[in-house]
Amino acid sequence: MEKVLFVLLPNFADREPVILAEALNWGFHMWESKFEVKTVGLSTEPIKSLGGFTVLPDYSINDVPDSFSALILIGGTEWNSNEAQKVLPLIERAKQKNRLIGAICDASRFLAVNGYVNSVEHTSNDLESIKKTPSNKYTGENYYRQKQSVRDGNFVTANGTAFVEFARDVLLGLEAAPSEKINELFRLCKEGFCPD
Amino acid sequence: MEKVLFVLLPNFADREPVILAEALNWGFHMWESKFEVKTVGLSTEPIKSLGGFTVLPDYSINDVPDSFSALILIGGTEWNSNEAQKVLPLIERAKQKNRLIGAICDASRFLAVNGYVNSVEHTSNDLESIKKTPSNKYTGENYYRQKQSVRDGNFVTANGTAFVEFARDVLLGLEAAPSEKINELFRLCKEGFCPD
Repeated sequence: MEKVLFVLLPNFADREPVILAEALNWGFHMWESKFEVKTVGLSTEPIKSLGGFTVLPDYSINDVPDSFSALILIGGTEWNSNEAQKVLPLIERAKQKNRLIGAICDASRFLAVNGYVNSVEHTSNDLESIKKTPSNKYTGENYYRQKQSVRDGNFVTANGTAFVEFARDVLLGLEAAPSEKINELFRLCKEGFCPD
Repeated sequence: MEKVLFVLLPNFADREPVILAEALNWGFHMWESKFEVKTVGLSTEPIKSLGGFTVLPDYSINDVPDSFSALILIGGTEWNSNEAQKVLPLIERAKQKNRLIGAICDASRFLAVNGYVNSVEHTSNDLESIKKTPSNKYTGENYYRQKQSVRDGNFVTANGTAFVEFARDVLLGLEAAPSEKINELFRLCKEGFCPD
């Protein structure tokens, strides 16, 4: 099984990884999974989410396996912290290996201000919060799109309400299943079994 | 802070608790939270989700605090197991105390086949899976509704695609925030910042 790494900082947003993680890890009975989900913390200590769940990460950021298919950065309140800088070497490694890099909510701002989406189409919660971040390597304003989720090459970015769109775009980028199945999952997650 | 208990069995469905947990625990900056989310396992051992996350529960089922505002049963693959029967005394306690009881996906089938929704409107993934469960106390077919989520008195039930509707109905039942704010959160979670 190919590993997909989900980076979780303290106070991560519970809603943001879930559709993608379930789709990758078990395929919702809609397809056979080729992937396994692994969580990465700054250390191996338990991580408390915004929703009050305590997650035990599979790896610390210093102990991540060499081989992985994608790196997924989950939003939350700590991407402005000094501690978050510890994630940069892993992002650099993913980029060097041409792995898919997904970032949602404030993690997409982190990707932007560290100069990773200056020449690829991208989105985030809002452009202003990227531009007003201090010590900023962002020059990609012309590539900013006002959309739920944007995929361009190996990068998928999304705002914090776009956890379903983000999942769809990462799944399409990884060719995790036939696109019609991914789109059917998208519709089910947005409308449900019994749409009004 | 009033506690809301989320019961998680092994292989619980990651998507099902998240909107509700975030809304209760921090209010998405939309309102001030009166609640704290606490997770309950069958033991205090880590619990692996369907999406591959490992959650450390706050309590074991035998060590739950006396005072709580609501009991939320999260779906997954294990509600048919013998082990799941250990949750019944906690459901009975919540019912005796007139607490809100929410159950989503296969946990709503568990509630039904154990006779808890025979005289209240309810839903589940499908009626047939309730009726074909062995050792069944279900006589509530006339109260079954083909809807995403149903609230009737202290009971909220929902199908496994209805994690946003389920959150809305539990939040309304708990009066967690003014209803217009809950409805605005619902719209944001369904449509997002940038609806197509």
